[in-house]
Amino acid sequence: KKTYRIAVLPGDGIGPEIMEEAVKVLSLVAEREGVTFEFKHGRIGGIAIDTDGTPLPEETLTIAKEADAVMLGAVGGPKWDQNPGHLRPEAGLLGIRKALGLFANIRPATMHPSLVEASSLKPEVVSGVDLIVVRELTGGIYFGEKKRYDGPNGEVAEDQCIYHEAEIERIVRVAFDIARKRQKRLVSVDKANVLESSRLWRKVTERVAADYPDVELSHMLVDACAMQLVRAPKQFDVIVTENMFGDILSDQAAMLTGSIGMLASASLAEGSFGLYEPVHGSAPDIAGQGIANPLATILSAAMMLRLSFGMDAAADAVERAVWSVLEAGHRTGDIAADRSRAIGTAEMGRLVREAL
Amino acid sequence: KKTYRIAVLPGDGIGPEIMEEAVKVLSLVAEREGVTFEFKHGRIGGIAIDTDGTPLPEETLTIAKEADAVMLGAVGGPKWDQNPGHLRPEAGLLGIRKALGLFANIRPATMHPSLVEASSLKPEVVSGVDLIVVRELTGGIYFGEKKRYDGPNGEVAEDQCIYHEAEIERIVRVAFDIARKRQKRLVSVDKANVLESSRLWRKVTERVAADYPDVELSHMLVDACAMQLVRAPKQFDVIVTENMFGDILSDQAAMLTGSIGMLASASLAEGSFGLYEPVHGSAPDIAGQGIANPLATILSAAMMLRLSFGMDAAADAVERAVWSVLEAGHRTGDIAADRSRAIGTAEMGRLVREAL
Ligand SMILES: CC(C)[C@H](C(=O)O)[C@@H](O)C(=O)O
Ligand SMILES: CC(C)[C@H](C(=O)O)[C@@H](O)C(=O)O
Repeated sequence: KKTYRIAVLPGDGIGPEIMEEAVKVLSLVAEREGVTFEFKHGRIGGIAIDTDGTPLPEETLTIAKEADAVMLGAVGGPKWDQNPGHLRPEAGLLGIRKALGLFANIRPATMHPSLVEASSLKPEVVSGVDLIVVRELTGGIYFGEKKRYDGPNGEVAEDQCIYHEAEIERIVRVAFDIARKRQKRLVSVDKANVLESSRLWRKVTERVAADYPDVELSHMLVDACAMQLVRAPKQFDVIVTENMFGDILSDQAAMLTGSIGMLASASLAEGSFGLYEPVHGSAPDIAGQGIANPLATILSAAMMLRLSFGMDAAADAVERAVWSVLEAGHRTGDIAADRSRAIGTAEMGRLVREAL
Repeated sequence: KKTYRIAVLPGDGIGPEIMEEAVKVLSLVAEREGVTFEFKHGRIGGIAIDTDGTPLPEETLTIAKEADAVMLGAVGGPKWDQNPGHLRPEAGLLGIRKALGLFANIRPATMHPSLVEASSLKPEVVSGVDLIVVRELTGGIYFGEKKRYDGPNGEVAEDQCIYHEAEIERIVRVAFDIARKRQKRLVSVDKANVLESSRLWRKVTERVAADYPDVELSHMLVDACAMQLVRAPKQFDVIVTENMFGDILSDQAAMLTGSIGMLASASLAEGSFGLYEPVHGSAPDIAGQGIANPLATILSAAMMLRLSFGMDAAADAVERAVWSVLEAGHRTGDIAADRSRAIGTAEMGRLVREAL
């Protein structure tokens, strides 16, 4: 019997509640597919700060490294917002990305037909949106050198944005590979009219493109892309961009769908290892009430089945189960038109398992 | 008779056509208000590259420096897109910003009631949107040191993002002053959970806030702001942010209104000097056809009257004239529901002058 080790890091806020439902779905998948999932829990983010004095304890890193894939809930909350940088929940997230070499963040923004009304955009603009933002996740201004010092006229702060050719090449290849399996249209987003790192980005992207003659590559400036995502999001198939631009554009793209509680993401290393997490945050305001939407986490589990375990059929089945529950009209509060009829986290999880 | 010197830099593409209408409007204003506007034309962008071999000739800079304000059309076009960085039209724009110390970019995004349908967002989400993005324009990653060198594994590129306390303080003060005259709500946008420059930004903003107890200040992360602009743009009054984030968010905010051909901007130095330009680009595809929308340039002229010349009543009159022409149903192609009935650049300019 094939065994997969899954590191489970629920994190803060609604993290534990939504993760519980995803784990139950995965257990059912294991049963049906005749495989074994070995779950090992670890602490990350605020809870780890409270318990271990650091947002990313060594023990958690070991659990993650020994696993075949990682499921993450969400990190953060007001309790830790005033902490110094290295003692903030986000440092755990940035730390695990770097430590595990998770350089490729895959963020699909798909408009499910039954949720079109949830969008702030007109139905004709968003219905049918189906795009993926591929974001470089371990380079750029996030991980460049930081400085803070006193100048002649007060304090000065610096962040270095640095990209190596090899870093650009590997993320761009991931994006081309994804585009090749879809509509074969890749938009590379940069700010080549201003940034040196963007000019290198564009040059490398052009070079790699020669290996993908079947994929249509175009370049777009980041400001133009922010406009086009609002104006006509359906024009996009796959977008690839650097870390900081990807942070902004993937969140913007996610919000176009109006149902961020539905969106999954993958952060991949070389090979098949990956970390999977919902796009939404830890939502401390509703934590512990059993009303959070577990679907993004369940869909993240489906991404894991597909991308890390090669279990495509099982992944499809989980996704179909989620869509069928939605089509049957079931909604958690975040996506419900009529909140009084919204169902809770556990009930939603149960319905998905039932559909499965 | 009071005299104001105005440097007129039409630039490329539709620049000359739209500028002509703005200049005519300004001439009418001068007549009515009993002042003299002395227009001096200069070259910038692609046309300057072709004529003078540089996107920002010394002569142009002298004309601008000797003026009380600058009106700019737009720069850029496919003809110069393959040029090296310093020989690209954008270099002229970045150069004039730095040379004239235009540190405060003011970008209003206002939804005019008669244009609500042009937006890709639902009417109830955008109608009433009236926000201003205040963007720092002469610092940050735009003007930090750039490097390109060969590393052990291929090329490496670096951009330095640097902010000095004084640079942050002066732009934040501009934003507080603007907010004070509006709804008194200021959102400062940064990425303080990752960037050192953002942490300094936040610290300085907090310090300056003490001088504006009547303005409500909040902080928002740039990714969250990109989401909130899509989800609920009406929540914003004034947004202040650094150069790169401002480039992205101001364009995103502009596109929310769906009529970027209507949006004006100001780039201000200390004192009353400023450069005024439409938000839209040079639109080379429609250049020379006489169909471009001159209203954003005319509204930029109104901003100049108000912000550089203190001619508030005249500015109001120009703005009212523009709105009345729109309310009467006149549209250029970019904002027309029925393109066959769209009017041209000159006709639109004439109607505004008539309304004035
Ligand atoms: C929490 C934060 C550091 C993180 C990022 O900016 O990468 C988050 O916004 C994300 O997109 O995963
Ligand atoms: C042309 C370009 C350099 C410029 C910028 O990025 O500042 C433009 O996008 C703008 O916003 O004025």
